[in-house]
Amino acid sequence: MSVLFTDLYQLTMARAYFEANKHKDHAVFEGFFRRCPFKGEFAIFGGFDLLKKILDEFHLSSEDLKYLRSLPAFSNASETFFDELKALHLKDIQILAMQEGEVVFAKEPLIQIRGPLMKIQLLESSVLNALNFATLVATCAHRIKLVAKNKSLVEFGLRRAQGPNGAMTASRSSFLGGFDATSNVQAGMDLGIPVVGTMAHSFVQSFVSGELDAFMAYASSFPDTALLLVDTYDTLRSGLPNAIKTFECLRKNGHKPAGIRLDSGDLVYLSKAARKMLNEAGFSEAQIFASNDLDEKTIESLEEQGSCIDAYGVGTQLVTSAGQPALGGVFKLVELNGHPRMKISQQTDKLVLPAAKNVYRFFGKDHEMLIDVMSAASEQAPLAGKEIEALHPSDPFKKAVVIPSQVESLLKPLFENGKWLDSRTLSEKRQFSSQRMSQVRSDIKRPHNPAPYKVSITQRLKSLTDALYLKESPPAVLE
Amino acid sequence: MSVLFTDLYQLTMARAYFEANKHKDHAVFEGFFRRCPFKGEFAIFGGFDLLKKILDEFHLSSEDLKYLRSLPAFSNASETFFDELKALHLKDIQILAMQEGEVVFAKEPLIQIRGPLMKIQLLESSVLNALNFATLVATCAHRIKLVAKNKSLVEFGLRRAQGPNGAMTASRSSFLGGFDATSNVQAGMDLGIPVVGTMAHSFVQSFVSGELDAFMAYASSFPDTALLLVDTYDTLRSGLPNAIKTFECLRKNGHKPAGIRLDSGDLVYLSKAARKMLNEAGFSEAQIFASNDLDEKTIESLEEQGSCIDAYGVGTQLVTSAGQPALGGVFKLVELNGHPRMKISQQTDKLVLPAAKNVYRFFGKDHEMLIDVMSAASEQAPLAGKEIEALHPSDPFKKAVVIPSQVESLLKPLFENGKWLDSRTLSEKRQFSSQRMSQVRSDIKRPHNPAPYKVSITQRLKSLTDALYLKESPPAVLE
Repeated sequence: MSVLFTDLYQLTMARAYFEANKHKDHAVFEGFFRRCPFKGEFAIFGGFDLLKKILDEFHLSSEDLKYLRSLPAFSNASETFFDELKALHLKDIQILAMQEGEVVFAKEPLIQIRGPLMKIQLLESSVLNALNFATLVATCAHRIKLVAKNKSLVEFGLRRAQGPNGAMTASRSSFLGGFDATSNVQAGMDLGIPVVGTMAHSFVQSFVSGELDAFMAYASSFPDTALLLVDTYDTLRSGLPNAIKTFECLRKNGHKPAGIRLDSGDLVYLSKAARKMLNEAGFSEAQIFASNDLDEKTIESLEEQGSCIDAYGVGTQLVTSAGQPALGGVFKLVELNGHPRMKISQQTDKLVLPAAKNVYRFFGKDHEMLIDVMSAASEQAPLAGKEIEALHPSDPFKKAVVIPSQVESLLKPLFENGKWLDSRTLSEKRQFSSQRMSQVRSDIKRPHNPAPYKVSITQRLKSLTDALYLKESPPAVLE
Repeated sequence: MSVLFTDLYQLTMARAYFEANKHKDHAVFEGFFRRCPFKGEFAIFGGFDLLKKILDEFHLSSEDLKYLRSLPAFSNASETFFDELKALHLKDIQILAMQEGEVVFAKEPLIQIRGPLMKIQLLESSVLNALNFATLVATCAHRIKLVAKNKSLVEFGLRRAQGPNGAMTASRSSFLGGFDATSNVQAGMDLGIPVVGTMAHSFVQSFVSGELDAFMAYASSFPDTALLLVDTYDTLRSGLPNAIKTFECLRKNGHKPAGIRLDSGDLVYLSKAARKMLNEAGFSEAQIFASNDLDEKTIESLEEQGSCIDAYGVGTQLVTSAGQPALGGVFKLVELNGHPRMKISQQTDKLVLPAAKNVYRFFGKDHEMLIDVMSAASEQAPLAGKEIEALHPSDPFKKAVVIPSQVESLLKPLFENGKWLDSRTLSEKRQFSSQRMSQVRSDIKRPHNPAPYKVSITQRLKSLTDALYLKESPPAVLE
């Protein structure tokens, strides 16, 4: 992805900044989202693989520049502007961000980029592209994990994903959010995610001599791992009996049959019937794998009804985040040359808190997460054991006094002097994410009507916001 | 995308086919979807750029093979199997498909791949990945075009798209479906799509001295094309007056101001008020560009209420196809070594029509599309002017007798002898799509409760399906 993978206005603004001699103004931008996805109250932060790629490839080739010159907006731009573009680098950019895998909440900055105004502007669109979707899928995956209890979860949405990167990001983010494996072999190779596969209907159909022959052939190639797909013709009258015949044959040869897959029909009824047939034939360890357009709600319902399913394959609904296909992540200028900046907008809910911020997470005595507090970056850090007043960002009646047992600053250096500072592996991030989620109160995580986690601001940040709002947007006079 | 960009089961099946000596069986697979997206009755077929890429890159590198060998499923596979994988090529694969940009309907084959069973299986997942999402966005774009009448439409969803490819595919498919431009500069460069840009709030905020200075600076860089964003502080009390001052200054210098952009608030009220203010100041030609999470429904409503909007910027809702984020496109084995094959499944709506098929489109006297008819590929082609009986694919009471004025075979050769045969440009495809849509009856295209377009089958295909169904799935005995 070259710098051209951006919205045109970033480049036209770059030119206008340059011509107004503002391109080197020191800016601070912050990225955040306004509401947690899926009517939930948490999200899991992801997308660092794409983010790193964007930073690594931040330059313009001579072809890129030639194309830019061909556009009306740049045809009469000066050579000095093109020289500036030619020399783009990120050595003067500093990025702070929450850790990948972190449990994050609405309205708090997840990423903070500091540096020359023009360059940050050129990063905005692609950075949002990188973080928005990955965060959505990681969150979706974790929500599924919460309702699926301790069942195995496999992502297999490659064919329905929104493009090849969509599929790769979905595989990676599902794993980050707690899935156990993927069907996407490329993701297995590139990211070290365990890969899982069963068989398709076409395999069964391709045996004109019938389903049993298909199962036998597959089992002969994969005697210890074959998951036989039993619904090509009729699950209980044909698929299961043929699978059991195949398993008996495997057993005779000293193998332990892996299991079956259900892909249509009533999964509650069929999984119970299949479990009974398998058990009666002495295959109580054979797994029942279920698929068929599953999502959080369906899996929750299958679990509540006592289905006998050992592993879920989740595709379309997860990889396209169908419950909410876009996270409204935004990226806003909050400070320029040391002055806090704020966007007012016609809608109060689109208002942006000004100033470069810190975010502190307060933990209670039992290591549970209590509250996140945003402060102006210039304020002193809160201390464990010391009382602090935490204000609601918009409701003047809501405030709390908190004495944290432990305080953690959440925005960590991620990129400095042209260097990427995050060396954790994907598995470590997944582990971190899972540990963090265990510190979140269960009413915040529950699938329906969850309680909001408190994200608050300090008195100083509140005063600064109020003063700037009054200055930038004096009250309307209605006549 | 190497061959590894697929689901693991395609590779395990490949091995099982190989070991059962079935890998060279001559197969025919067809890809189709079961329901048109967005509760509509048509779709626009897209995704050929990704499809071509998949075919171009269909091979396994030595690293790929090394990774495969490391997986339990392949650790004990024979060297001859790996030799087969090493030598993969597509010279014996033939692909027929509807043309890109074609108006297509549910249940009819959009793509038909003929060749060795194992290779087609290895293509399945990535081919679906290529076609599903692109078709969805092209359709979504055209639906927006239908409600937006003749207003300009610009796609600008890069930041919310599901990954970089997601954004590129969205830009390309939106244009194919009738959009006029994109904000995605890379898409402009790679695909020749016109690019459009306005300005962001951050630009306005970055001028501590105020909005007017920001507008003046931007207008000085782009005197003839600046679209000024007027809602950073207050649209009617600050944004518009400052825009008009800027426009007056431009006029004095002999320029014709381009217009403004509204991005929040009530777009009906604000666009009417803005139009009035601009007209009164003598800028009746200045355009009003609107954005803010627009979709088909909102644009339909804005048009119905007589908003004064000249151009719409559509982002998130279009590029993620939020109304329906996945097309349930499937790819099924329909014939093997000359034998028709069919999948029964536990759900009748998942039943697949057997046999390699032709699809004929019948046109009436006034060039309107009358009906699509699927026949077994072995049947003679229907002729213009000659009566033919067309049967509903599943309802035995519905049939029609049709005398077409013109007949077109819709599945055209797309790939043969390793060669890609589609040389049309994206603009030509867009033009073709628009012309085709003009031949579709308006009640089929309407946004709400559209009439279904008839997709039928011949008597011969019906008889073949019935016979095969009875053979593969004899009636259940309830005891």
